[in-house]
Amino acid sequence: MLDVQSFAAGRWVAPGSGARNIASAISGEVIARAGNDALDVQEMLSHAREVGGPALRKMTFHDRARMLKALAGFLQERKQALYDLSYDTGATLNDHKIDVDGGIGTMMVFASKGRREMPDAHVFLDGPPEQLGRSGQFMGRHICTPLQGVAVHINAFNFPVWGMLEKLAPTLLAGVPAIVKPATATCYVTEACVRMMLDSGVLPEGAVQLVSGGLGDMLDHLDCQDAVAFTGSADTALELRGNRNLMENSVRFASEQDSLNASVLGPDAAPGTPEFDLFVKEVQREMTAKAGQKCTAIRRIMVPEDHVGAVLEAISTRLLKTTVGDPRAEDTRMGALVSTAQRADVLEKAALIGKEAERVFGDPENFEVAGADAEKGAFVPPMLFYCREPDTAQRVHDTEAFGPVSTVMAYRDLDHAVNLLNRGKGSLVASVITNDGAVARELALGSAAFHGRLYFNNRESMAEATGHGAPLPHMVHGGPGRAGGGEELGGIRGVMHYMQRTAVQGSPDILTAIGQQWVPGATEISDRAHPFTRTFGDLDLGETFNSPSRTVTLEDIETFAHFTGDTFYAHIDDEAAKANPFFPGRVAHGYLLLSFAAGLFVQPDPGPVLANTGLDNLRFMEPVAAGDSIKVRLTVKHKTPRNEEYGEVRWHVTLTNQDDKPVAEYELLTMNAY
Amino acid sequence: MLDVQSFAAGRWVAPGSGARNIASAISGEVIARAGNDALDVQEMLSHAREVGGPALRKMTFHDRARMLKALAGFLQERKQALYDLSYDTGATLNDHKIDVDGGIGTMMVFASKGRREMPDAHVFLDGPPEQLGRSGQFMGRHICTPLQGVAVHINAFNFPVWGMLEKLAPTLLAGVPAIVKPATATCYVTEACVRMMLDSGVLPEGAVQLVSGGLGDMLDHLDCQDAVAFTGSADTALELRGNRNLMENSVRFASEQDSLNASVLGPDAAPGTPEFDLFVKEVQREMTAKAGQKCTAIRRIMVPEDHVGAVLEAISTRLLKTTVGDPRAEDTRMGALVSTAQRADVLEKAALIGKEAERVFGDPENFEVAGADAEKGAFVPPMLFYCREPDTAQRVHDTEAFGPVSTVMAYRDLDHAVNLLNRGKGSLVASVITNDGAVARELALGSAAFHGRLYFNNRESMAEATGHGAPLPHMVHGGPGRAGGGEELGGIRGVMHYMQRTAVQGSPDILTAIGQQWVPGATEISDRAHPFTRTFGDLDLGETFNSPSRTVTLEDIETFAHFTGDTFYAHIDDEAAKANPFFPGRVAHGYLLLSFAAGLFVQPDPGPVLANTGLDNLRFMEPVAAGDSIKVRLTVKHKTPRNEEYGEVRWHVTLTNQDDKPVAEYELLTMNAY
Repeated sequence: MLDVQSFAAGRWVAPGSGARNIASAISGEVIARAGNDALDVQEMLSHAREVGGPALRKMTFHDRARMLKALAGFLQERKQALYDLSYDTGATLNDHKIDVDGGIGTMMVFASKGRREMPDAHVFLDGPPEQLGRSGQFMGRHICTPLQGVAVHINAFNFPVWGMLEKLAPTLLAGVPAIVKPATATCYVTEACVRMMLDSGVLPEGAVQLVSGGLGDMLDHLDCQDAVAFTGSADTALELRGNRNLMENSVRFASEQDSLNASVLGPDAAPGTPEFDLFVKEVQREMTAKAGQKCTAIRRIMVPEDHVGAVLEAISTRLLKTTVGDPRAEDTRMGALVSTAQRADVLEKAALIGKEAERVFGDPENFEVAGADAEKGAFVPPMLFYCREPDTAQRVHDTEAFGPVSTVMAYRDLDHAVNLLNRGKGSLVASVITNDGAVARELALGSAAFHGRLYFNNRESMAEATGHGAPLPHMVHGGPGRAGGGEELGGIRGVMHYMQRTAVQGSPDILTAIGQQWVPGATEISDRAHPFTRTFGDLDLGETFNSPSRTVTLEDIETFAHFTGDTFYAHIDDEAAKANPFFPGRVAHGYLLLSFAAGLFVQPDPGPVLANTGLDNLRFMEPVAAGDSIKVRLTVKHKTPRNEEYGEVRWHVTLTNQDDKPVAEYELLTMNAY
Repeated sequence: MLDVQSFAAGRWVAPGSGARNIASAISGEVIARAGNDALDVQEMLSHAREVGGPALRKMTFHDRARMLKALAGFLQERKQALYDLSYDTGATLNDHKIDVDGGIGTMMVFASKGRREMPDAHVFLDGPPEQLGRSGQFMGRHICTPLQGVAVHINAFNFPVWGMLEKLAPTLLAGVPAIVKPATATCYVTEACVRMMLDSGVLPEGAVQLVSGGLGDMLDHLDCQDAVAFTGSADTALELRGNRNLMENSVRFASEQDSLNASVLGPDAAPGTPEFDLFVKEVQREMTAKAGQKCTAIRRIMVPEDHVGAVLEAISTRLLKTTVGDPRAEDTRMGALVSTAQRADVLEKAALIGKEAERVFGDPENFEVAGADAEKGAFVPPMLFYCREPDTAQRVHDTEAFGPVSTVMAYRDLDHAVNLLNRGKGSLVASVITNDGAVARELALGSAAFHGRLYFNNRESMAEATGHGAPLPHMVHGGPGRAGGGEELGGIRGVMHYMQRTAVQGSPDILTAIGQQWVPGATEISDRAHPFTRTFGDLDLGETFNSPSRTVTLEDIETFAHFTGDTFYAHIDDEAAKANPFFPGRVAHGYLLLSFAAGLFVQPDPGPVLANTGLDNLRFMEPVAAGDSIKVRLTVKHKTPRNEEYGEVRWHVTLTNQDDKPVAEYELLTMNAY
């Protein structure tokens, strides 16, 4: 018997009054208990707000990304212990991998994106500056800073590890402490994972707390700097969403709830095509993985009316081979539901669906369970339904049986398929198996607005495709309407849910000071040594080099044309160039200007600048003719450390002509030694 | 007496049962009536969903941007009529300009951004593709498509034109029809503006409908494809937000409600500095413009404790010169509140504030009203309070008197200023007048999370600054917590509130078909003529040119170095280059490679390619030494029409070496004739 503890304000708290028993999904025996009505939620909130938040906000995005990487590495080495604990939730080893490895992988991706896509700083810049006045002395830009409160994560029972880590990774990367409340049914796995994270020693005090059991009245004490992220049932979501305190304080509330996800077999994917086989395989896998207890599982299967018979037969054949039983056994393909209460719920929902659809596979009264007691464990067989009248049916479109239950229905044409897809009234994911780009586009235009994710697969992508049901850290997870309207993950997008976006207006110097990125118009520091002679660490934002000027001669243009082979008429033939709407006559090559510019600013001898690694946002603004001269202004715009030896410097570069008119503008990237 | 009509399902509907009288803010006489209980809200919703939405979605973003431009131009020519109507709302000519010209300007900015920052297509791409498998045959990206329902806009009384247009511009640009419900008190101005828009003939049928009067039970009929955007009081917001149907269907609800906006005088901005004078001027203007009936008006004034006396005196002196009276009179600087009910509310709130703060200017029992009847009109004087104990006070931080009422309070240091700022518990805007970047950064880090906008001003920016109170179309408007947690405007960010973001996964060909932007790995069409010889209209996505290869010789490198002056040691000195972590020895210049690449793909003779206008995302991936050879692959990635004569083609360019290893990758921009 496990006593599942909470971790509150730096202390582990054992179950107390109000503790609930938790049974094994396989044997039905009580294996753990959790919950303590005496948990001091105010103290937990204060601990997060006053200790965890300030500590996290002192770190930069890169610091926090490194912390995530260390955490993920620490868990990676200890995942067997989490697998071992997880069997009693009814899950198989493959299911554990989705949960545990999926969670760790998500953390790894956020660690990597945090380093690559965010600055080593405290403020995230959202978009470029906007010039708000004529001369550029009043500018605007958007910054994102961490919420100064706490994130309350309320998770579902099905993924005790991934469910926590997919919310925790973006939250911690944002710089916000979290209070994690797993579903009680599987909280013993989550507790073990939290212990590991705390043992790693890489989390600042107060960054993560855990409530095993009920949250008490915590939501009544949240304010405008807090956020709630919920995954679970629509009923619970509605209750939480309607919490008066949350509404009065506009507390952020993101919900991921029911979803009648669908999969469509494209009209091109007839029996005999690779797509047909792929479809059958994905449907079977999505129905039975985690015994169908996945918010992204396929609940509705839409197939061209000609192929209904073939699809029913092929899926049934695969389901027949899906051994149900003790998840610890190697041959088992599908384990148990999480609890007998859940089993009762699934059977009730399946019966509702059965009023509108015929069951063509799986009899809950009569199926084999290998190596376990079918009565005591929470087992059900996979159940496939066929609905003949999907247009008049209602329950097949709005009843989520949270188990291995799915309904096949026929569509007449793509319009009909779109119509059926959208009758889910908002879902997490829809998949389409097609090798026809026009089909993909038509379905996307018709139904993307109803789905958080559209997954396409075919013979080209099947070897690498990650599966209909798998939310990836790179891609947004969450859907509109019935699915709750929330959004999680999606790379840096997911981090923004824990930050406030603020429009900032001011002079270029003020914006530079706030964003730690030089804004055009801000002070140029030009009284120091050439910035290419100064190390990464020494360089200040705004350090500027003004080059001498160089005249571009007709001979230069000729030479360059013949040397490079770029004999475009605008460089060669004055008459033809004049007929071109962009040129006054023969002009210099853009690349000639870039090359001369480099010649004007480069420092020949070894120094801190190691290499020119790239160039962004180059725009040619004014043609340069023979006899014109150019000069370059080069300013330190932004600095990003890359490793122990060097960092990337982003330079704002402007080429001007003899009249000081800008000829070209771009950003140059160099690697500079410390 | 105006009969203010509604525009429902293509028909104008006169006031009927349930109509309410509307009084002039100046004379108190009834001048209009509005409302009709018999309005068929279901029919209006159907009309928007079935007629307006499909028509708008057929248009591209550029089509809709052109529509906005035409609408704005049409209104611009007719704005005098809107000014004339607006005096009875109590507003002065300057106030009308904020409302009418501000609204038209907002529409213009969205028209322009729609053309420049969105594609001429039906799908908006959010971010670059993500490679989700090893070989790149399974990719992900995010698309945004218009919601397929209707946007219900519930607006406040203070800006009958801007309030409508700032919501309408992003909604229509997104491709979503709207039902506009102005506040009844000033709906006659909105009705006139809607008539003009309909008269323009540029709006598709069903794109805009109008409810003058009450909405009935419209919100009970919204679903997951609809959105509500509300501006008004916190009480109304709470009632709407708690609507069970909205909650059950996760209908998007954006709210902009109360806000205790603050302005901070920087510690550096002592009397005698340009910043001190600027501060006093902005405070007076923000208190009295629109008689303080602006959601962004300054309610709390925070000044260093040493300067309290000077600030109180300087603001009072300016307020003394603020003539209150008939808004039609040229000398009037401040008109009336919108109604006598509003006046009663403001006086009640001011009295509450008076319990914690001393009134130092403005006596509502005794003030001059020029050219109007002070009893019948809704006049109040500007009222300035001084709160001695802002730390223990509560009402000054949470009571929004929606009129010319503001409270001065002292701060000890920046920490204290941050603390006072954040006691507003979420606001639309805070301003800081400072010429010190460090002050700006400290206040931003401390309080950005509590504000939708931070406005900095000083001697550098004052000539161009747009004012504390002005929401600009480029910048996000809306704030956390008490301010409602909603977000509007912010350029294309504001358009996204009416679109669904959907993660899309699939093969590169599938993503190309959906997004109309070629994705690396998708089919390359290389059996046609050189794409530089083909017109903008003829070019298909994926058309590819594979160049022959060219060997880079040591002589080439030498020649280029001395021709351009770029004698960086890595190109000149083998030994020194070897010591550099990036190079195996002497290597070719990056710009030499770019220039040779151009030589390999350029077509010398006049043809459809008019000019190379720019280059993006260049990354050098592998050094090229003497004896290596390079070749170029050039593929049509994206096309954007720019005018009647030509469009922009974005090319994906890859340089590879003799081992087919990528040496550099970039995107090239050209202008191509039709």
